[in-house]
Amino acid sequence: MNNYRKKCAEISEHPLFMNTIIGLIIINAILVGLETYSYFENNFYDWIYLADQLLLWVFTIELLIRLLGSKSIGSFFKEPWNIFDFVIVASGHLLVGAHYVTVLRVLRVLRVLRAVSVIPSLRRMVNALLLTIPSMGTIMLLLGIFFYIYAVIGTMMFQSIAPEYFGTLHDSLLSLFQVITLESWASGVMRPILTEDPTSWWYFVTFILIGSFVIVNLFVGVVVNNVEEASREEKPTPTDIKLEEVQNELREIKQLLKKKED
Amino acid sequence: MNNYRKKCAEISEHPLFMNTIIGLIIINAILVGLETYSYFENNFYDWIYLADQLLLWVFTIELLIRLLGSKSIGSFFKEPWNIFDFVIVASGHLLVGAHYVTVLRVLRVLRVLRAVSVIPSLRRMVNALLLTIPSMGTIMLLLGIFFYIYAVIGTMMFQSIAPEYFGTLHDSLLSLFQVITLESWASGVMRPILTEDPTSWWYFVTFILIGSFVIVNLFVGVVVNNVEEASREEKPTPTDIKLEEVQNELREIKQLLKKKED
Amino acid sequence: MNNYRKKCAEISEHPLFMNTIIGLIIINAILVGLETYSYFENNFYDWIYLADQLLLWVFTIELLIRLLGSKSIGSFFKEPWNIFDFVIVASGHLLVGAHYVTVLRVLRVLRVLRAVSVIPSLRRMVNALLLTIPSMGTIMLLLGIFFYIYAVIGTMMFQSIAPEYFGTLHDSLLSLFQVITLESWASGVMRPILTEDPTSWWYFVTFILIGSFVIVNLFVGVVVNNVEEASREEKPTPTDIKLEEVQNELREIKQLLKKKED
Amino acid sequence: MNNYRKKCAEISEHPLFMNTIIGLIIINAILVGLETYSYFENNFYDWIYLADQLLLWVFTIELLIRLLGSKSIGSFFKEPWNIFDFVIVASGHLLVGAHYVTVLRVLRVLRVLRAVSVIPSLRRMVNALLLTIPSMGTIMLLLGIFFYIYAVIGTMMFQSIAPEYFGTLHDSLLSLFQVITLESWASGVMRPILTEDPTSWWYFVTFILIGSFVIVNLFVGVVVNNVEEASREEKPTPTDIKLEEVQNELREIKQLLKKKED
Repeated sequence: MNNYRKKCAEISEHPLFMNTIIGLIIINAILVGLETYSYFENNFYDWIYLADQLLLWVFTIELLIRLLGSKSIGSFFKEPWNIFDFVIVASGHLLVGAHYVTVLRVLRVLRVLRAVSVIPSLRRMVNALLLTIPSMGTIMLLLGIFFYIYAVIGTMMFQSIAPEYFGTLHDSLLSLFQVITLESWASGVMRPILTEDPTSWWYFVTFILIGSFVIVNLFVGVVVNNVEEASREEKPTPTDIKLEEVQNELREIKQLLKKKED
Repeated sequence: MNNYRKKCAEISEHPLFMNTIIGLIIINAILVGLETYSYFENNFYDWIYLADQLLLWVFTIELLIRLLGSKSIGSFFKEPWNIFDFVIVASGHLLVGAHYVTVLRVLRVLRVLRAVSVIPSLRRMVNALLLTIPSMGTIMLLLGIFFYIYAVIGTMMFQSIAPEYFGTLHDSLLSLFQVITLESWASGVMRPILTEDPTSWWYFVTFILIGSFVIVNLFVGVVVNNVEEASREEKPTPTDIKLEEVQNELREIKQLLKKKED
Repeated sequence: MNNYRKKCAEISEHPLFMNTIIGLIIINAILVGLETYSYFENNFYDWIYLADQLLLWVFTIELLIRLLGSKSIGSFFKEPWNIFDFVIVASGHLLVGAHYVTVLRVLRVLRVLRAVSVIPSLRRMVNALLLTIPSMGTIMLLLGIFFYIYAVIGTMMFQSIAPEYFGTLHDSLLSLFQVITLESWASGVMRPILTEDPTSWWYFVTFILIGSFVIVNLFVGVVVNNVEEASREEKPTPTDIKLEEVQNELREIKQLLKKKED
Repeated sequence: MNNYRKKCAEISEHPLFMNTIIGLIIINAILVGLETYSYFENNFYDWIYLADQLLLWVFTIELLIRLLGSKSIGSFFKEPWNIFDFVIVASGHLLVGAHYVTVLRVLRVLRVLRAVSVIPSLRRMVNALLLTIPSMGTIMLLLGIFFYIYAVIGTMMFQSIAPEYFGTLHDSLLSLFQVITLESWASGVMRPILTEDPTSWWYFVTFILIGSFVIVNLFVGVVVNNVEEASREEKPTPTDIKLEEVQNELREIKQLLKKKED
């Protein structure tokens, strides 16, 4: 039994195994892309379907090998990327008979994301990106409160003037997201409102000024965090190397002094 | 009397007290959001009004407890966030009979901002953000002069060509704000003017170049400031730890030398 | 004579003198702003004209006092801001009889810029901003070549398809500036061209990718430069303070050793 | 023969030689610019053609001199910029008889790029810029996967609703590039789709949030990389200078101790 586990672990760590899987993911990506062209969907539907089923089974076998090769089922599912892989593959089997064609197709597209779980450098980068999210928690909460207050005020004031932008609270939230990206905030959103309510400019100008100020600070925080972290992980600087020399010399002096004492 | 003060302070510092207030602020936020939907406003107006009055009184009691629990009234109002809380709650009472429905509703929305004054991490973040403003004073003054000069020149030159953008000085200031956010600056503002005054491109191009140059430098200044501050507050670096070791060793050597002297 | 110079220098350095000038510049700014409103221009033209002439003469006297108070005429004109002040004031006198009303008005607007030459903190900031320009020289040249090549290619290819954007070389340069600010680059410029020349997307996509890559690097260079400079000018770090303590201790040890030698 | 090589190397390194070439590149740039104006093309075509041929031959001779002046043909073509020069000049000769007028004209425009290969400071800057590309490899791959997945999903969902934006997979990729530059993403792309599919906002909002998050991190990575590199190359800090003093003093103390030992 243990022998069997070892073999599976060996296979799953073999570079050829990984490269094959990467290759299959690329083929999966190409298939999923071709499917969007009606020409391929109409003329090669059977082939695409067949290849798709084949890929699903290969990915299932791959997952099984990696599962059997892991120390225990528990340790395997501790790694979030393995859970992701499992969910993607399992739902592919579970929904096969279903009529939710769109869901199935989206699942097949998401299999392309498996590239992240398979290629180590990509996985490390995504993990690093995800780790920066918690440190943005407080500022995100602040942004949320800020958006909510402006959305409620905007709905109250412009509900009847511009129903397509501020008709309901969720419309307002979407419009404010558009405004903060600075897309047509003046030509599309503000100027038509301004003709009816000439004092409404303060609403948009303060929203953009405060919003971009907070977002810039969010961004600055991320930069500063990264610079600090990088400098903490840094290899010994020339200063540190010199300091070590100083320490060595001090040790020598102490020995000289002690020898004399004897 | 003093005993009474102590109890109030105890209550106001109890986590349950704070969590209750946060909960009530969230309820207040939801109510204020629901009110924007005409369905709720028409069918549940009485309930919303009742809940609103209740919340106002609970917030009043909360404020009183915190006021009674503070060392003195003076020390309580030294903290700007307490003044903010007081103004929000007091104006809720003062304006109750008034017909300014919109003002009252905006006040209720602003109560959501009390989340900042109640949640410590949010308050610290907002305080930190506000502290960065004074250091931007000079560059803001420079931006102001720059905007004003361009607004006056723009009004002089394009008043008759594009009255909707440069009709008056305040129109021009708003249009220049739109231009600096790069929103429709060419397709909406410059190109129509260009057909009448083919040399006007220099006005917009120089405005964008100089303006974004100054703003980028404002931004760079904030980044540099933050990096510096962060590095100043930093915990002892490995270099500092090694230096302390060096100092300890030197002290030992000195003692060795002094011992011999005796 | 020398006594006279001393008195002038004294006056020109007196805080009251500077504050008066700042006040007059603000009045000048307000006048120049009021003038843009036709109501004021029509009803108070004589008063505005009078105030303007008065201000011009006060500024002339101010300049004379500062000129007389300086060590020599040469040293006075070494400072570029003094030359700026001189040109602004002198041209106000020279062009008084002229019919170039617009030029005269622009000159009056530019007098607002004198705030920079009078307020020391503003002057220092503008000097600092101007100093960062030379370090951007090479990258600006690169951007220039890049823009020129794309403008020539764009004119060659889209001259007949989109004459309003790429009709002539200078039209193309302006359009490319619009594209690099990302303003309506797709909806306004590319998509109409795309309907006629379906392969033209590579022109715009590569232009935006390369252009923003270079500009981001320009920006990064400025940030890095500033961080470095700031860290060079920094006050002694805790590390430096500790190092000084180490040096002091070493000196003591040396003295102890030398004393014993004697 | 060797003598001949030396002379060629001498010529090719002479400042006058380089300045002449730079001058000719500028003339080439001006010619290529003038050619876009139909007035010049119609009236001075023969002159422009002649000058162009002359320039081509001068550049050929320049290349030959630099080739002959190099240590060996192999070492000459090791430098990528020399290959670039060679291709530009050689293709000018090869395609002379061809009817591909546009290709020929683009080639002539690209000769302006030779400024980069001739001016050392520009060449260094471009080399530095190109060197930063490999470090962005992983994040570019991530962005690519992210774009591809959204493009496939977008095509699947909006193919029939907005064929001009999401008709085919490559249309979708172009539209997503437009969306990530925030150009008309709401007014042009999302809002028309929203009227048919009111839940499609999540597609655009998540795309912009995730996309800009990844791009900001790409940017942050470049900044951090540059700051680190700059700090590594830095000249000795004041701390290092003090440390050296400490080391010198320690050496003196050791000598003092050793002398006493004798």
